[in-house]
Amino acid sequence: GAESGRGMAAWARGVRGLLLDISGVLYDSGGGGGGAPIAGSAEAVRKIKASGLKLRFCTNETQATREKFVKKLQGLGFDISVAEVTAPAPAACRLLKERGLRPHLLVHDDLIPEFAEIDKTNPNCVVVGDAAENFSYANVNEAFRVLIGLEKPVLISLGRGRYYKETDGLKLDVGAYMKALEYACDVEAEVVGKPAKAFFESALAEMGVPPQQAIMIGDDIVNDVGGAQQCGMRAVQVRTGKYRPCDENHPQVKPDAYVNNLAEAVDVILSQL
Amino acid sequence: GAESGRGMAAWARGVRGLLLDISGVLYDSGGGGGGAPIAGSAEAVRKIKASGLKLRFCTNETQATREKFVKKLQGLGFDISVAEVTAPAPAACRLLKERGLRPHLLVHDDLIPEFAEIDKTNPNCVVVGDAAENFSYANVNEAFRVLIGLEKPVLISLGRGRYYKETDGLKLDVGAYMKALEYACDVEAEVVGKPAKAFFESALAEMGVPPQQAIMIGDDIVNDVGGAQQCGMRAVQVRTGKYRPCDENHPQVKPDAYVNNLAEAVDVILSQL
Repeated sequence: GAESGRGMAAWARGVRGLLLDISGVLYDSGGGGGGAPIAGSAEAVRKIKASGLKLRFCTNETQATREKFVKKLQGLGFDISVAEVTAPAPAACRLLKERGLRPHLLVHDDLIPEFAEIDKTNPNCVVVGDAAENFSYANVNEAFRVLIGLEKPVLISLGRGRYYKETDGLKLDVGAYMKALEYACDVEAEVVGKPAKAFFESALAEMGVPPQQAIMIGDDIVNDVGGAQQCGMRAVQVRTGKYRPCDENHPQVKPDAYVNNLAEAVDVILSQL
Repeated sequence: GAESGRGMAAWARGVRGLLLDISGVLYDSGGGGGGAPIAGSAEAVRKIKASGLKLRFCTNETQATREKFVKKLQGLGFDISVAEVTAPAPAACRLLKERGLRPHLLVHDDLIPEFAEIDKTNPNCVVVGDAAENFSYANVNEAFRVLIGLEKPVLISLGRGRYYKETDGLKLDVGAYMKALEYACDVEAEVVGKPAKAFFESALAEMGVPPQQAIMIGDDIVNDVGGAQQCGMRAVQVRTGKYRPCDENHPQVKPDAYVNNLAEAVDVILSQL
């Protein structure tokens, strides 16, 4: 079984790099100010940077461009830059270009600038992200009509999360709408972002650390913990964000450890350096 | 393989009762006047009634009360009454009462009167119907929050259709949103309406005809044709409504016959009496 945070802490040894999920680990999104930092997380990020450990932020956030997202986090007190963030939209753009795909976008308005360089005329695929309020019936139906009208429908999903936690409660994530479109069009989506192996591997490559020497820290038992473990990394679940006690009985995924929050994880890891 | 409509017409022999799907068979919904009748269908219904065959309309329509729906069809020229219609909402009400369930409703505004007698305080389940424009992100999220907050989530879906055809194009049906909620909450919906066996059986009972002597006529290869065949009925697919040529290569379901439209089906069946 998984260790609890402190104790022997064998899970925290031999580490050279950390991948941090953002939403639910650094902060909870939503509310007037765009979210609330989780106690101790800003200080924990500063400690990681002071320690000499490699660090990469690995997020499925698709409600804003990385620029806007990072600015919000800086405003909440985090030491973070755009160059440190691995996010689904740029990965999707690489894939679209490689395969000559022209997307119809079912995404948040604020994400659209990430696709500025991409030809969107006469679409031959659909890209779905966390569109939130843009998931109106009319918009979802329009994406459905594009897909069902294609001889070979291609659906690219920026993540497959079920839900996330905002300050005012749980919110449906992109995965639910991915499933709706998959069912309506009888297609299987290609997922860009966590838990896709290629996504974790690109984050590791950007950090220059092999999976055996890296730890993923996230609040999503399947997409953070399970996905990272599939890549040969260790993975720790925080008891913040969308964490629910029943996650600890997940039938498929067992984290290498549970910690109460990012601050505790970082303290344990740094104590083992 | 399935026969085409005319020809030997062995599929049309020994019939005592017909179940007719409505949307895509009698008329195409949508547009200013609430829809357009399919050529020859009103006359075909009159011929069935004149023939002495038993007749029942078996619909998954959940965008209006049966009263309102039937009034619309009468306005389009159809000889139809509320007592002749088997629809999901009354079946759902019976199930809710039997099991002491209090629903949160994610349905079309016009369907709500069907649930007038049902206690909806302090909900312990969600009922999802074809809510159309009511499938806003806020409404779907609210239903999600009710479900995820229940110790044992119960999701009742009024049908599982993928899409239907309106006069201005294809529209996402309840099944897509059922799948979204199933995935987000890790539950399996209980389907009331076609293709549920109990639903076809109640229509047959209301008609007083055993399945071996009944034919279902519909445009949905899975929910009409497949569902009826699972009950031991014959089933014919019309090439109207949501019919698409690729339906004729469906990997699981083979209709007993294809016909161009309801008028042709009825002519063949009456010629065998």
